[in-house]
Order: sequence, then structure tokens, then C-alpha cells
Amino acid sequence: MKITVLAGGVGGAKFLRGLREHLRATLPDGQGGTTAEITAIVNTGDDLWLTGLRVCPDLDSIMYTLGGANDEERGWGRHGESERVSTELTEYGVGWPWFTLGDLDLGTHITRSHLLREGRTLSEATAHVAARWNLGITLLPMSDQPVETHVVVAGEGAGDGGAAGGAGAGAERSMHFEEWWVRYRAGLPAVRFEQRGLEESVAAPGVVEAILGGDVVLVAPSNPVVSIGTILTVPGIRSALENTAAPIVGVSPIISGAAVRGMAHACLSAIGVATAADAVGLHYGARASGGLLDAWLVDESDSGLLPGLAEAGLRVVAVPLWMNSVEHAAALAGAALAEAALLRA
Amino acid sequence: MKITVLAGGVGGAKFLRGLREHLRATLPDGQGGTTAEITAIVNTGDDLWLTGLRVCPDLDSIMYTLGGANDEERGWGRHGESERVSTELTEYGVGWPWFTLGDLDLGTHITRSHLLREGRTLSEATAHVAARWNLGITLLPMSDQPVETHVVVAGEGAGDGGAAGGAGAGAERSMHFEEWWVRYRAGLPAVRFEQRGLEESVAAPGVVEAILGGDVVLVAPSNPVVSIGTILTVPGIRSALENTAAPIVGVSPIISGAAVRGMAHACLSAIGVATAADAVGLHYGARASGGLLDAWLVDESDSGLLPGLAEAGLRVVAVPLWMNSVEHAAALAGAALAEAALLRA
Repeated sequence: MKITVLAGGVGGAKFLRGLREHLRATLPDGQGGTTAEITAIVNTGDDLWLTGLRVCPDLDSIMYTLGGANDEERGWGRHGESERVSTELTEYGVGWPWFTLGDLDLGTHITRSHLLREGRTLSEATAHVAARWNLGITLLPMSDQPVETHVVVAGEGAGDGGAAGGAGAGAERSMHFEEWWVRYRAGLPAVRFEQRGLEESVAAPGVVEAILGGDVVLVAPSNPVVSIGTILTVPGIRSALENTAAPIVGVSPIISGAAVRGMAHACLSAIGVATAADAVGLHYGARASGGLLDAWLVDESDSGLLPGLAEAGLRVVAVPLWMNSVEHAAALAGAALAEAALLRA
Repeated sequence: MKITVLAGGVGGAKFLRGLREHLRATLPDGQGGTTAEITAIVNTGDDLWLTGLRVCPDLDSIMYTLGGANDEERGWGRHGESERVSTELTEYGVGWPWFTLGDLDLGTHITRSHLLREGRTLSEATAHVAARWNLGITLLPMSDQPVETHVVVAGEGAGDGGAAGGAGAGAERSMHFEEWWVRYRAGLPAVRFEQRGLEESVAAPGVVEAILGGDVVLVAPSNPVVSIGTILTVPGIRSALENTAAPIVGVSPIISGAAVRGMAHACLSAIGVATAADAVGLHYGARASGGLLDAWLVDESDSGLLPGLAEAGLRVVAVPLWMNSVEHAAALAGAALAEAALLRA
């Protein structure tokens, strides 16, 4: 069985770990793994060059989590992490002092940047670093070309007529997504998101094939705007999703009107979508009417939304969505696969 | 007073620290520093790109030593150093596992590489990182262009007729100086040294001016072949030394027939020079007969060499050369300056 998953960072990582766990139990290969082939298509819109190093937050979150090297308590990065190099960079006045680059994490960034400079693609560099961790899941960046999400926010000084930098009242300014997300904790109202480099990008090798050739396509409970939304904008991916024979089952990242993790609300409001499981499901849309999804998993607490969604033509199932343990995440992945099996039947 | 010093790494660093100490005591500026202007022209022939990072061993040895951040016990690198990133790089199978990149040290390499990629010259990047440490000495790389020393060694398999890689019996191969020095501990007999990039190089901004405008030029007790020798090959430097009105006083890196530190013997034998204070002095040569030096300081234990050197036209003084404390290094620097004063009188 071939399973393809669209995924962002932390939510995607937990979902993939649960999926792997579920498949090891239900389709074991007799050696601790699974006979199922899992391919993750990972958002790279958060990637950035920082002091000459290519940082890929979502790929690394997934790699560390699946590799058992993640910091469970903090929710991101490597466990046992330290920041000796980062402290030096701050002393030298380079980099972003508010953006943590852990020492262990830097090993990944330096390796990847080195491979990229040697002429390898991001796909190749990702395969190289992932090989160390024996993930049991193939990680594919959505694209080998840089597609960086920038956030356009209202300019400072709007209305005061004397903004520094020559920006007129109400002028917009933009910043890399990670600056908006980490430095400002998504606290500056976003006017819109821009994907820089999108025009020159194509889906990375294997991405379209994994969607077209998959038996199931799952949409992880990741940020619908800047993770899944970004993946969907990459030329080639949307049409592969339209054309695949595989059922496409999505998992809501919103439970009871709040993001399971992170600040998805600030992203959703920028595109005029309510922070609600039904609103996000309708935003993705039913495949029958030109949308993404064949089915949509919402949390049991949101089962009241089912009638409205069914009316809009979206097949919806209410299951426990909280992934507060590997077992719960495995059960959720199992529910998504069960729904896909029904759709294929 | 303007003092210009040609220097390699560790020996150069100790000498410069002693010189600064001596001048703070003899030409104090009333604020803990000195009114003397010290400029160090530093060998960059050992520099290398390693996993995408520009490493400058001699510049950094000097910077850390003068900045009080060096590891006195180990003799190189930062004190309180760790190697967490380096361990990760080895896990990922990149870099040179036998070449230590400390975490604190990496902060310097990442900063410098970042500045170089932003388009700054090595001089500018060096000034940026050095500014943090308040050295009281201006550090100039010998050149802003990469001039990397490679070592040509006899090929393996000489005589066995079946060497791998298609190299014939007795074929030569070459490697970066740091590989020869650190990995093989200078144990592979060197056939010759090559300076790659020399043709495209010129002396860095300020280097020729510091030599021509100095009141004194000192040659630190550094490796005569791969440190001082390399500096002398950079276009513009030799002729500035020929034309400066300043006396040029050198300090022997050899005491009693052995290198004070390091494996200078392996370098000297490659160029057919004996590991002896007189042989190195004669290799540099007396300025009067087209050589480098106006005077040459050897250790007291080598005073027996004085008559022979005087016969060859080289003015020689025997003083204690061991720099086993800052005070001893300061006394040595004082002796070199005293000799220069006599020459100027």
C-alpha cells in the first residue's frame, strides 16, 4: 500500500509518526517496520537562508520527530539541545537573535547548506540527511526551488503621517514568514501572504508521482494557509491532486474553534476563513465540486458541524483528533485510512 | 610608533601578545593600552573551505589569543570549547572527522563565511569579527584573495605497480596543507608546497602601507616555510619589504635545532633547509645582500652560531626565545624592538 501525506511541521510530524505506528501494527514487515510505503510531501515555504545556512523548519521537525530526536517537551527542535554557536553569532552581531539555532540543529543546517552548494538539489540533500535517521518514511520537499512565504503587514505609523523610512501612512511592508511567526508571534495583523519564487518552482521529483500513484492521499492536520496552502500552490501539485485516483482524506487542524497548535488563527483571518473545523473544510472544498477533499475528519467535539458540512457536499467523520500520544495519533491515522478504504470500496 | 609584524598562527599569536604587553608598559596611553600602532600581517595560506565554511586558522589563533579566549593548555582554539556540531557533521558524513571544528570556533567561521558571501572582503570580515575582541592590534590578512597552500607528496603505491586510482608508481599527489598537517601530522614526506591562487592574489589593503610606513617591521617566530614563506610570496609584499625604510628584525622559530612548536622540520626539509636557527636565518638572508633581515634573534643556547652568521653578513643577537609566559614573550618583543632601535640610530 502506498500512502502519500501532505504535511507541515509539528502537526505533520505527529501525524506521520502516528501513521507509521499504525502501519507497523497493521501492515508489519516482520522486521519492526511496515510493508506500506509512506511518502510525505513537506512544506518548504518556511525555509530561509540565515547567516549563510539553509534552514528548513518543517522538513527538520518531521525528521527529528520521526527519528526520535525531537524535544517533546518544547515541541520543536532536538532534545538535549544547546545554543553555544548561536550565542557566538549574536556576539558577532549577525543572524536573528530571536531565532534559535541550536547546536545539534546547526549540524543539519550546515550539512544541508554544504550539499546545496555542492550542487545537490534540496530533494537530494533531504535524502542525505534523512538517511541517517532511518525514518521508514520518504521525505520529499514540495519543491526543489526556493518558495519562501512572506507576510505583508500594514506599515507602522499608519495614520501618524510621520512614519520613519519614508513609508506613507498605511503603507504595507513585508517580512519572511519566520520573522512574523517567531519574532512577532503572528501578532502583526497579516494583510496577505506571498509565495516568493513560486513562478520559477515546480513540484520536486517524485511529488506528482507519489500523488498520482498513491493508494491514499492524506492531508495532515497542519496549518491550512502557510503549510498545506503553500504546498497546493506549487505548480503541478494541485492538478496531480485533481487527477489522482486515490481518495483524499483530510484531518482538521482546528478543534472546537481553536488551532490544535500554533497560531493558525492569525493566518486564517488573513485569508478570510474562520478558525473552525467546518470553515477550513469548506475552504479546502469537496472534491466533487472542484475542491481538494473526498473526506474530512473533525474532532468529536465538532460533531455538531456535520450536518452543515454534509449539506455542502463534504463527507465528514467525527473522531478523536487530539494527538497527545503516539497511540492517539496512530488511532487518528487509522481512522483516516479506514475512511479512505471506504471511499475506495 | 608604528610596528608591523609578519605572523603565522600560534607562534605569531604569542609573540604579538608579548609585543602588546611590552608596549602597554613602555608606551602606555594612560587607559591600559599603548600609543604604539601595531599591525599584524597574517598568513592565510592555511585557510580552507570546510562544509561551506571559511576557516582561517592563523587569523583565528591570533584573534583568540589576543582576545584572551584561547585555550592555553591545548595550545589552539577557544577555551571551554565543545564539539557538538562537529559530532553531528560526522554523523551526517560530511566534513573532515579528523579536523576539529569547535562550537565556539564555528561561531567565527559561520560569521566570516556569511560576511564573505554578502560580498565583504576577507579584510572586512576580519575587521568585523576582530572588533568584538578589542585586540589593540590591527589584524590584516596577507591577501583578500584565497591563496591556499597545498602539499605535494610522493604517491602511495610507489614501487608496487598496482596503486589504486590509476596513479603510477612514484606518482605525486597533493592535498590541502591542513590535511597534511592535521590528518597526517606532517608525516608524509613533502616533495614541495604549492600556493594555489597566488597568481590572482595581491597584498590586502593596508599591507604594503603598513610595511612601507612602519617604524619597525618584525618577523614573528612562525613557520618559515608555510607561514612567513607564504606571506612573502604574495605579490607586492616582498618589494614593500625591500623598499621600506624600517629595520626588519626577525625572531627564530628554531631553538637548539628544534622547532619551538609544531612540525616545522617537515616543512624545512622539503625546501632543503636544515632545522637550525642559523640555517633559517640564512634562508631569510641578510638584507644587505638581497635578503629579508636587518637582524636576527636566536636563542641564547644557539649563541655558538653567531660567528658563522656574522660571517654571512647577518647581524645576530642571542636572547632568551622561549615564550612560556606573557612576560617572557614581552621581554623577547622588547629585545626585538631594542635591536630595531639600534638599527635606526
